[in-house]
Amino acid sequence: MPDAARFLADLDALRAIGARGTGVVRRAFDEADIHARRWLADRFADAGLEARIDPAGNVWGLRGRLLIGSHIDTQPEGGWLDGALGVIAGLEVARGNPGVSVVAFQDEEGRFGATTGSEIWSGTLTLAEADALTDLDGLTFGAARAALPATGAMPDPSRFSAYLEPHIEQGPVLDAAGEAVGVVTAIVGLRQVTVTLTGAQNHAGTTPMHLRRDALRGLSDADHAIRAALAPLVTPASVWTIGHVALHPNAPSAVPGRARFTVQWRDAETARLDAMEAAIRAALEDVTRTAGLGLEISATTALPPTAMDPGLRAVLRDAAAAHAPDRWREMPSGALHDATNVARLMPAGMLFAPSIGGISHDFAEDTGRDDLAICLAVLAEAAARLT
Amino acid sequence: MPDAARFLADLDALRAIGARGTGVVRRAFDEADIHARRWLADRFADAGLEARIDPAGNVWGLRGRLLIGSHIDTQPEGGWLDGALGVIAGLEVARGNPGVSVVAFQDEEGRFGATTGSEIWSGTLTLAEADALTDLDGLTFGAARAALPATGAMPDPSRFSAYLEPHIEQGPVLDAAGEAVGVVTAIVGLRQVTVTLTGAQNHAGTTPMHLRRDALRGLSDADHAIRAALAPLVTPASVWTIGHVALHPNAPSAVPGRARFTVQWRDAETARLDAMEAAIRAALEDVTRTAGLGLEISATTALPPTAMDPGLRAVLRDAAAAHAPDRWREMPSGALHDATNVARLMPAGMLFAPSIGGISHDFAEDTGRDDLAICLAVLAEAAARLT
Repeated sequence: MPDAARFLADLDALRAIGARGTGVVRRAFDEADIHARRWLADRFADAGLEARIDPAGNVWGLRGRLLIGSHIDTQPEGGWLDGALGVIAGLEVARGNPGVSVVAFQDEEGRFGATTGSEIWSGTLTLAEADALTDLDGLTFGAARAALPATGAMPDPSRFSAYLEPHIEQGPVLDAAGEAVGVVTAIVGLRQVTVTLTGAQNHAGTTPMHLRRDALRGLSDADHAIRAALAPLVTPASVWTIGHVALHPNAPSAVPGRARFTVQWRDAETARLDAMEAAIRAALEDVTRTAGLGLEISATTALPPTAMDPGLRAVLRDAAAAHAPDRWREMPSGALHDATNVARLMPAGMLFAPSIGGISHDFAEDTGRDDLAICLAVLAEAAARLT
Repeated sequence: MPDAARFLADLDALRAIGARGTGVVRRAFDEADIHARRWLADRFADAGLEARIDPAGNVWGLRGRLLIGSHIDTQPEGGWLDGALGVIAGLEVARGNPGVSVVAFQDEEGRFGATTGSEIWSGTLTLAEADALTDLDGLTFGAARAALPATGAMPDPSRFSAYLEPHIEQGPVLDAAGEAVGVVTAIVGLRQVTVTLTGAQNHAGTTPMHLRRDALRGLSDADHAIRAALAPLVTPASVWTIGHVALHPNAPSAVPGRARFTVQWRDAETARLDAMEAAIRAALEDVTRTAGLGLEISATTALPPTAMDPGLRAVLRDAAAAHAPDRWREMPSGALHDATNVARLMPAGMLFAPSIGGISHDFAEDTGRDDLAICLAVLAEAAARLT
């Protein structure tokens, strides 16, 4: 049986490294992050695991064939749980289960790239490519990682049979439903385009309404048309967002001549991502043809969905049903995780704990201690069935 | 009879001072503007008028009781006609009509304030208040005007019986209709509010659509609701504009938590401005209540409409009918002009020439030479009837 009190004490000890009020700041390879990685390697050794820091800064606690982990770096204004939950839960499970190894990947939060440590390990990115990545101040990954010398090579992925990543949900679904556990079906795919609508910039006093070609009106018509076009295609787990808008000239007395905005959509199914894209493009074409606006749509940025392994999902469902009866659900992950990369190497599964109010990437991020203990129990049960 | 060729030659000579390709840059009190003001004072003297530069930088050609004029300063990327048309047309009419005086007001385009020279002359603004106004580089009106010493005091308004201001339309109405002359009914009033919609900033991947409070959706719903609410209230000359938008955090992967935008509306009737304001406020309240968004509306900025003098309008209509039969109309001015200030002192009227494509405040601004000559003929005819 895992020791929930010890697990929570370890989480609190890690929270103290880089603490800012209720939150934490540990950017990949900053002083607090390096401190935390050395502290973690010591905990792995204390637990009887082979502690190893690899050249990418990933921290390993090696023993069994079931790999459990996540990341311990944070956003610039990070929460205390985010990836830390999965790593410390893995540590506690490994203490009682010799079939388990643990990993804390580096730079999941993208100071330099995005999920950089697991990308390197999974072969998506070479270490040489990663070394050239820079943070917003121009520091390279290569220069930054020199502050944390490797104690060993990257482990051969073939030594592991499967990967489990516990994580906070970072959304409001479980909390709103009063549920304790989410078994992840897939990490959703993401697509994004940048749209430019071109009208005619004019004097807002002298240009009659019927002679205007107003790019802001084009944007609001596009928003409505996209909503209408997507409604029949989507599931409750599909999302789309117009998050960035730039108007030109953006002056109170000028009819907007140009609107540039992003449209981003996410879904767990490639076919639905395709259907959403076709509907969004058709809606934009309809709106701009009707309004006499110019339309440019950028090339589509696409991250494919990553399905979680059906066998691991079944084990996690059974464990959730045992420890949180009627308080769990299957659900997609709307956010990206290290499991996306690890799934290229081996079967991968994910487990969610609720985020209070859906808040994450914020000092206010939190999860009830009872729910953290349930997450640990479900993970330990699943690990026991898999080892 | 005015000499159209001499009038066009004078316009071309003034265009050469501060020329940039097809456009002109003469910001109030810059080198080109001062050059142009001295050139203009010389032209007034040559025409037998008493040339005078007043302490605000307004240039006067004094003789008769009918005042004709406009301004000769330009926008940062100005057109060649804008205010220059009215001043040079006044000069040409004054050459043949001793009942006419001419004025070129200063800083109509608002390097320091807005219609600064005519505001000072009309008593809306004191010279001491104006002296404290600064341009975007921090230069004061007071320091700038030292470069153009006054040659006399401000003329007593009581020496004039009426004011006529010819101007380009700066909008597309006459050009679109193939018409040559607009007789202005009123300079429209303007009202403006800044609206802040507050929703909930969230992760664009993990927040389901039904749990979002998206401020960008609030903006597009507000735009649609305002359109629907205003449609039954307005005339074809009423306008409204959402010209400035700022989203927060304005990131592709964040559900917008806040949208701040301006709503500006213009009409020639105070009652209609009131009705439009009530409809806009009600629409914003409906939309935000339905969407669960916070709503703040700033205090209303208001410039009242300025009716043109009925007697002057009648004279201008007759003159337009004589020189441009079936090619003139009565219309409001959607833009602000010096006549707004002068109308506080004496009866005021305005005459519009078409703007090709409705373009103004742009190097591409232009009017056909035939239409410029018609404007001159209508003005001369009206002046003859009034003196």
